Formats: sequence, C-alpha cells, structure tokens
Amino acid sequence: MFRPFLSRALPTQSVAKRALSTGIPKASPLWKLGRLNHVAIAVPDIDQSTAFYRDLLGATVSAKVPLPEHGVYTVFVELGNTKIELLHPYGENSPIQGFLNKNKSGGIHHICIEVDDVTKAVNDLMAKGIKALNPVPKIGAHGKPVVFLHPKDCHGTLVELEQS
Amino acid sequence: MFRPFLSRALPTQSVAKRALSTGIPKASPLWKLGRLNHVAIAVPDIDQSTAFYRDLLGATVSAKVPLPEHGVYTVFVELGNTKIELLHPYGENSPIQGFLNKNKSGGIHHICIEVDDVTKAVNDLMAKGIKALNPVPKIGAHGKPVVFLHPKDCHGTLVELEQS
Repeated sequence: MFRPFLSRALPTQSVAKRALSTGIPKASPLWKLGRLNHVAIAVPDIDQSTAFYRDLLGATVSAKVPLPEHGVYTVFVELGNTKIELLHPYGENSPIQGFLNKNKSGGIHHICIEVDDVTKAVNDLMAKGIKALNPVPKIGAHGKPVVFLHPKDCHGTLVELEQS
Repeated sequence: MFRPFLSRALPTQSVAKRALSTGIPKASPLWKLGRLNHVAIAVPDIDQSTAFYRDLLGATVSAKVPLPEHGVYTVFVELGNTKIELLHPYGENSPIQGFLNKNKSGGIHHICIEVDDVTKAVNDLMAKGIKALNPVPKIGAHGKPVVFLHPKDCHGTLVELEQS
C-alpha cells in the first residue's frame, strides 16, 4: 500500500549537512554502494541460534566455522536475497566479547554493505568527516578487504563496507 | 575464500533442542521462510541519517513518510537486494521512543523476514515455544500482516515476520 518516492544521489564532494541545506545530493563518483552482504548477529550460544534459524524458521544454514584470526565462530543463515551471519566469540581476545558482555542475550552487531572499491570508499568518507575503525582496509572474514565505519558517525550503527 | 557447507532443513514438528541432539532438521511444512525484507534502524535525526545514506553513501532513498497509526516516520534506503528502514518516533506513544531513550545515538532495532503465511508461521512457532509480541497478526507499516517475535526467544534480536 505504501509507495515511497525514490530519489538517487548525484555525485559531488560535499558533506551531508550541506546537502541537507541545499537539497542537492552529494555522493562520490569515485565508488559505488552495492547490496547488503549480511546482517551480523552476536549470540551467546551459536549452536542453539543455528538450530533456531534452521529447525524452527526453516532456513538453510552453513556449518559452524572457527575463524581464529578474527576471533569468531561464524554460521551463515541464507535468506535468498542476503544472509544473517551468526557470530560467537573464539578465543580470549574476540572482538565481539565486549558486545556480548553488554548484551548477554545477544543482539544485532553490525550490517555489511558491499562497495565496488573499499579503499576509495573509505578515503572519500574520511575526507567527508566519517571516522573508520580501520582506515586501512583489512582482510575480513570472507577473504575480502573490509573497513568498519565508526558507529558514532553512522547514527549508532556499526557499518562494515566490504569489497564486492 | 570461505565456502560454507549449506544444509537445508527438513520439515517435521520437533523443537530446536531435540534437533540439535539428533542432528535432524525440524522445520515446519506448513509455511516457508522468504527473503530479508528490511533491516530497521532507529535514529534520533531522520533527516541527518537520510542525508548520510543518500549523500555520503550514494544510496537511493524514499521520501520521509509519517505513519501516525504506527507512531513512526519512515525512510527507506534501497540497497538493491533489500532495504534499510530508518525509523524515527512520531507522536507521544511511539513504539521506538523507549529504544531511543536507551540508545541515544540510534541503533539497529529489528530485522524483518518475509514468510508465505504469517498466521501459520506464528501459530507453528508459538506451538514450539517461541513467544510473539502480537500473537494475532496486525497490519504493519507496509500494509501487510506482520508479527513480532519476542527478542528473548530469538537470542536478543527483535524479529518481524511479514506476509510476503
């Protein structure tokens, strides 16, 4: 019933606040945003969460894979158009242990959006005032270069950009 | 580089814990899970967040639409395969005001997955011990029947099921 009017950004170099004041979209011509690669959910019991998505919701799920270099176990839940990535700490220095300490039941940890050139994307965004947790792209859990943008500059949401 | 092994659930009536102990998937034959309809993000300033996704990330966005009957303003951020739904409180009794009180910078509020029959889905899930915030489907923000599953039964994640 609801049919939103869609508007597409035009490529220029200004920041969001100026764009708001002028009404002129200001995206960069240097790189392009792509599809939602995954939604990551940190969970205290990854086997139980895997069973929930597989056995109660009927989703296709991957095997549980330990990624020691990233400090996580991962399971992918396939949803046809995209996937949920279940995350559970692996090892003592897991990057998601702090999140689970604050959210003992688990919770949505980040979203990952694909970009065609992650280096150009992060450099462009940093030039426009967006902080990156890792300004130099690193190899992510899927073997592709990624950067994480600071949640404070993304309205409370941890945003991962992954090379498509 | 990472190629997960995918397994598909088989339709039976048991619960996740029994499935885990036997290794036999236990999804329902009564209804089918579909695609990720959207990720909803609650934001304290919806115009600024719209500008971020449109002008800095270069996404196609909808107009801001007030939905008084749902107590929210919404903006849809198109990502090709799915969308982000930006949510901001409308009116004094907005269902997301409490979330923003706890998460002042904003944050990821819920995920919405499509199902082919939301009534069968919620009845089946409740029979298997999953609580619904609204056991009787209601008309959601997109004019379709929806139910919300209790975050405590979904490992900290608020899950919306929407009739596809």
